[in-house]
Amino acid sequence: MNFSKCWLDYQPIKNVEKAFSTLSVSCSGTVVESAVQEYCLAMKAMTGSEPEVVRTESEEGVSLYLDSSLSGKDGYELRKKEKGYTVTGQSESGVLYGVFELLRLIRTEKLADLPLTGAPEMPLRIMNHWDNMDGSIERGYSGNSFFYKDYEIFYNERTEQYARMMASIGINAIVINNVNVHEKETYLITDTYLQRVKKYSDLFCRYGIRLYTSVNFAAPMELADFDNCDPLNPQVADWWKEAAKHIYECIPEFGGFLVKADSEGRPGPFTYDRTHADGANMLARAVAPYGGIVIWRCFVYNCGQDWRDTKTDRARAAYDNFIDLDGCFDDNVILQIKNGPMDFQVREPVSPLFGGLKKTNMILEVQIAQEYTGQQIDLCYLLPMWREILDFDTYAEGEGSTVLKIVKGELYGQNLCGMAAVINTGDDYNWTGNDLAAANTYGYGRLAMNPSQSPESIAREWTALTLGARVEEPVTDMLMKSWSTYEKYTSPLGIGWMVTPHYHYGPDVDGYEYDRWGTYHRADRNGLGVDRTPAGTGYTSQYNEPWPGIYADREKCPEELLLFFHYVRYDEKLKSGKTLIQHIYDTHFEGVEEVEAMIEAWRGLAPKLSADVYERVMERMERQLANAIEWRDRINTYFYRKSGAADEKGRKIYE
Amino acid sequence: MNFSKCWLDYQPIKNVEKAFSTLSVSCSGTVVESAVQEYCLAMKAMTGSEPEVVRTESEEGVSLYLDSSLSGKDGYELRKKEKGYTVTGQSESGVLYGVFELLRLIRTEKLADLPLTGAPEMPLRIMNHWDNMDGSIERGYSGNSFFYKDYEIFYNERTEQYARMMASIGINAIVINNVNVHEKETYLITDTYLQRVKKYSDLFCRYGIRLYTSVNFAAPMELADFDNCDPLNPQVADWWKEAAKHIYECIPEFGGFLVKADSEGRPGPFTYDRTHADGANMLARAVAPYGGIVIWRCFVYNCGQDWRDTKTDRARAAYDNFIDLDGCFDDNVILQIKNGPMDFQVREPVSPLFGGLKKTNMILEVQIAQEYTGQQIDLCYLLPMWREILDFDTYAEGEGSTVLKIVKGELYGQNLCGMAAVINTGDDYNWTGNDLAAANTYGYGRLAMNPSQSPESIAREWTALTLGARVEEPVTDMLMKSWSTYEKYTSPLGIGWMVTPHYHYGPDVDGYEYDRWGTYHRADRNGLGVDRTPAGTGYTSQYNEPWPGIYADREKCPEELLLFFHYVRYDEKLKSGKTLIQHIYDTHFEGVEEVEAMIEAWRGLAPKLSADVYERVMERMERQLANAIEWRDRINTYFYRKSGAADEKGRKIYE
Repeated sequence: MNFSKCWLDYQPIKNVEKAFSTLSVSCSGTVVESAVQEYCLAMKAMTGSEPEVVRTESEEGVSLYLDSSLSGKDGYELRKKEKGYTVTGQSESGVLYGVFELLRLIRTEKLADLPLTGAPEMPLRIMNHWDNMDGSIERGYSGNSFFYKDYEIFYNERTEQYARMMASIGINAIVINNVNVHEKETYLITDTYLQRVKKYSDLFCRYGIRLYTSVNFAAPMELADFDNCDPLNPQVADWWKEAAKHIYECIPEFGGFLVKADSEGRPGPFTYDRTHADGANMLARAVAPYGGIVIWRCFVYNCGQDWRDTKTDRARAAYDNFIDLDGCFDDNVILQIKNGPMDFQVREPVSPLFGGLKKTNMILEVQIAQEYTGQQIDLCYLLPMWREILDFDTYAEGEGSTVLKIVKGELYGQNLCGMAAVINTGDDYNWTGNDLAAANTYGYGRLAMNPSQSPESIAREWTALTLGARVEEPVTDMLMKSWSTYEKYTSPLGIGWMVTPHYHYGPDVDGYEYDRWGTYHRADRNGLGVDRTPAGTGYTSQYNEPWPGIYADREKCPEELLLFFHYVRYDEKLKSGKTLIQHIYDTHFEGVEEVEAMIEAWRGLAPKLSADVYERVMERMERQLANAIEWRDRINTYFYRKSGAADEKGRKIYE
Repeated sequence: MNFSKCWLDYQPIKNVEKAFSTLSVSCSGTVVESAVQEYCLAMKAMTGSEPEVVRTESEEGVSLYLDSSLSGKDGYELRKKEKGYTVTGQSESGVLYGVFELLRLIRTEKLADLPLTGAPEMPLRIMNHWDNMDGSIERGYSGNSFFYKDYEIFYNERTEQYARMMASIGINAIVINNVNVHEKETYLITDTYLQRVKKYSDLFCRYGIRLYTSVNFAAPMELADFDNCDPLNPQVADWWKEAAKHIYECIPEFGGFLVKADSEGRPGPFTYDRTHADGANMLARAVAPYGGIVIWRCFVYNCGQDWRDTKTDRARAAYDNFIDLDGCFDDNVILQIKNGPMDFQVREPVSPLFGGLKKTNMILEVQIAQEYTGQQIDLCYLLPMWREILDFDTYAEGEGSTVLKIVKGELYGQNLCGMAAVINTGDDYNWTGNDLAAANTYGYGRLAMNPSQSPESIAREWTALTLGARVEEPVTDMLMKSWSTYEKYTSPLGIGWMVTPHYHYGPDVDGYEYDRWGTYHRADRNGLGVDRTPAGTGYTSQYNEPWPGIYADREKCPEELLLFFHYVRYDEKLKSGKTLIQHIYDTHFEGVEEVEAMIEAWRGLAPKLSADVYERVMERMERQLANAIEWRDRINTYFYRKSGAADEKGRKIYE
């Protein structure tokens, strides 16, 4: 097997302290043993010699303790002592997280930061795999699945490293299969696959991670002979209870189910005139006796919209479908809400559901896989976007009711909340297609653990761990600029889409304009944008005050979202004093220039990088440049043809 | 096997003459035996009793003669005699064609037309199958192949009926595999498949038809260990000679090769800096000793064009690639030229190559398969289009140098010429997806046999034979209007394309606009169309006088091709006095209305049609109406958004 070690690539360190050579372990358990193993493995690689592990307290060396009275679930405390260091965990996972933290400090030469305490701020830090059992990955841009091939489940060195990587960034829940559950995957929760799934669960448990599966709501029809899967049909509920019982007999640590129902052709309770609460609660009652949970996705919208219909607004769908169900869900149900009302575009407002639901467990769903943000060809570091989302003030309970407070459980005192992310890994050598895309994988976990750490600081950390301190500054700079650059050369001012249908890479301005997906830009010869004010679709009214007044007001609306909320004429002035059309031209020329500058910068780093990393990333950057040029030219030509407005700076716009 | 008999569905007739009950056969041969068999089969079905076949001359009944002095290769003569009828063929095929003609006259009650002579006017009347050996059909809209499945070759009742159907319409050459020759199909000319191919050839020969295969120009590399397929490499030429020798040893009647080279990714002589003549002649010399021919397609263009490039013009490609090779091809090479310079659009000018080449054998290629003309969902009777193409005056040798004269061999005294058509059949019960699409299959053969027969008369004939005389009038009316209707609701005034990429069904105005296929409409806020005059791409200069002056002149240019040749402003007046934009709106509303009227008309025919035919066609028509509405609305909205021009009649145009 040939795959990189990513941020767990422990290189020799300069400052080898004597203390590192002894590990005294005063606690026990399978997760603690993983911490021990990780420490030893890292030290061997960094210092050249295996540390001595002693099972008693010791004044010298690094000592591991478990102290459940420590504040913060799964928290940890790192201290310097006279002849070494202590790592105290509030739980076994706390010990493991503490060890990873200590290793990070050693590698980045920051032991001076001690003492230091930490605890995961979000209760659930979930990875969603969109892996299919045939080996493909829906919206995967890094090769095929390393979980499955031809309906077999792997278990190998790679899956082991994968579990270590996830633990090292604080992930504590993994959903192992695509939310679109196809025929064979429906059998994952049956004896056909359960023993293999258990092997994964056992592996994950050693790293403090619970395994979940996506389930097919119609499983009783596909696996048994039911002619319906009505959630209020007692036989259906019984079937699920039996299924859950069997799963938990086999895998007591099983986390629960993730469900995409009534969405994009998936079956669900709507078929039987039942609500999502009926559906979710029925499943939740099946797993409740075992402490299981049900995560129910809110990505429900009409994907058979008529483009002629300007009243229906896909952006409204999640809120409209779920707001009236607030308070109707069982305690072990969580709603998983995409960050924006559309679908992981480069720029969207925050979903109004976060500000709407008050008596419902909520998870924020983001997408590490760069479906619409460059597909791991183009560089797009997403942490700044996620940071903005977490910082968004919903005003649900007055000022300061940020999304972060909601998903931390702080605002409503909930325990079942946090973040879920569609992961961007595959069986490519470097795991993520573009080596630099791993900064998003790493960063997601780190952000969910500790959202007060800035995106820039996480970028620095990842870069130093993965590519070395010598390039920390310039690579962090590239990462930090990349989202803005990508946004500049793609669809402007929050309007989104304009991508090649189905593939979602590369420009096609009208690609979805006359289609059934509810994703329109409404460009005509005078302007573009969607009126989502009360005079239009009324979407702005789904927010708490003061947002409706801000978004609906052409002057107050945040400009980066202007076209999401308003139809704007090409000749209207923006805050910069530029017309809209000139803004479109300028940003698209700038976007390409920024990619060129990035490539120059990368070229300058060649001497400081290993040749293979340098070449792999350069190959991606060259493709990114071609993509950026294509976006620039198509967008500019498209809007030039529509507007007839010449570029003020006289640059080349093709006719 | 379950399949319809199409136009060979011999129903009982009213006027049974005593003469029909005897067939006297004064000639012999395998093709004559097919004629005898066909007569008997038809008579049994039409009269209820098997005719008596006598092998001597007889005063009574129907008599078959062979008289090689009869004028016209494969011609025939039908006469009434005192107590019966005579069918005299110039050849065995002539006898067969004569019998089919007699049966047609009996079925359509036109025996009074006798005496009657006929002879195929075009030497080659070819069907091109785009069937792949996996069972798929490229651009097939009638199910899968009835020749192949999973790389096996069928031989069954259906293939036998197929051969009979082809003979009944005068086809004398069939290419049994797709011009895009994939891996397995490359082996068709080897022992892997040759014995099965021979079975087909034997079947076809019984009906006067020669079998051809499409070949892979790179076959020496794929089948042997050649590192090149350079046509001037003597070893390559020798390999083909050996291959041909082996084919002809096995199948002495083998027709020859069809070749798509240097086109859309297919290999060809360009790779080695050789000309198409080098490539074609090399193959031609391999088959020449056995009387074989090589048909070389002229569909060669740059399919990696940059949309920004307004100088390169795909329409120029065939002429530019082949005109300088005139006179360079061996006698047994034929160039197969698509009817228009683009690719089977609903409206194109005639390819200028027909007027350019003078010392080269030419075949006119048309497409019965409705790739761009409704995919056998929408009704589009293509005979009127083909008629216009044949009637086009190239002025190659002064006035009257029609395409028809060229492909008949009349203008240059050639024998290797005629028509080829991409067939529209598949393994659907009705063979052609839409029952009515068989009118094109039938009509193609009939037109190639006798181009002076009008499209309307062919429509009547097909309708009467297939659906019965009771609906001849109204169905003929539908067929005759259908091309115009389809053109009205799709892309306007010769501009073409505007279809969903790859699938080629349904509207997507910008679908190909920023792509690499050389197919652009160049619409902006002021107008649309491609300037192909000398001020533009210069394509008009590829024609003989007076066409360049006509096409390049905005006022003289035939209006149905206006946007093919000119960029025209939306507010410019057409001959009708309407502006261009109003013309676009009007035709698109009319197109939908005409489909609605057609459906009404079809509904009225229900009592006169068998229920299964009625239902199958109605299902297609309903889909056609949905398609027409989608075209109307997308085209109208697209151009409304670009032009800002309101519909003068105030009809609904979505914004």
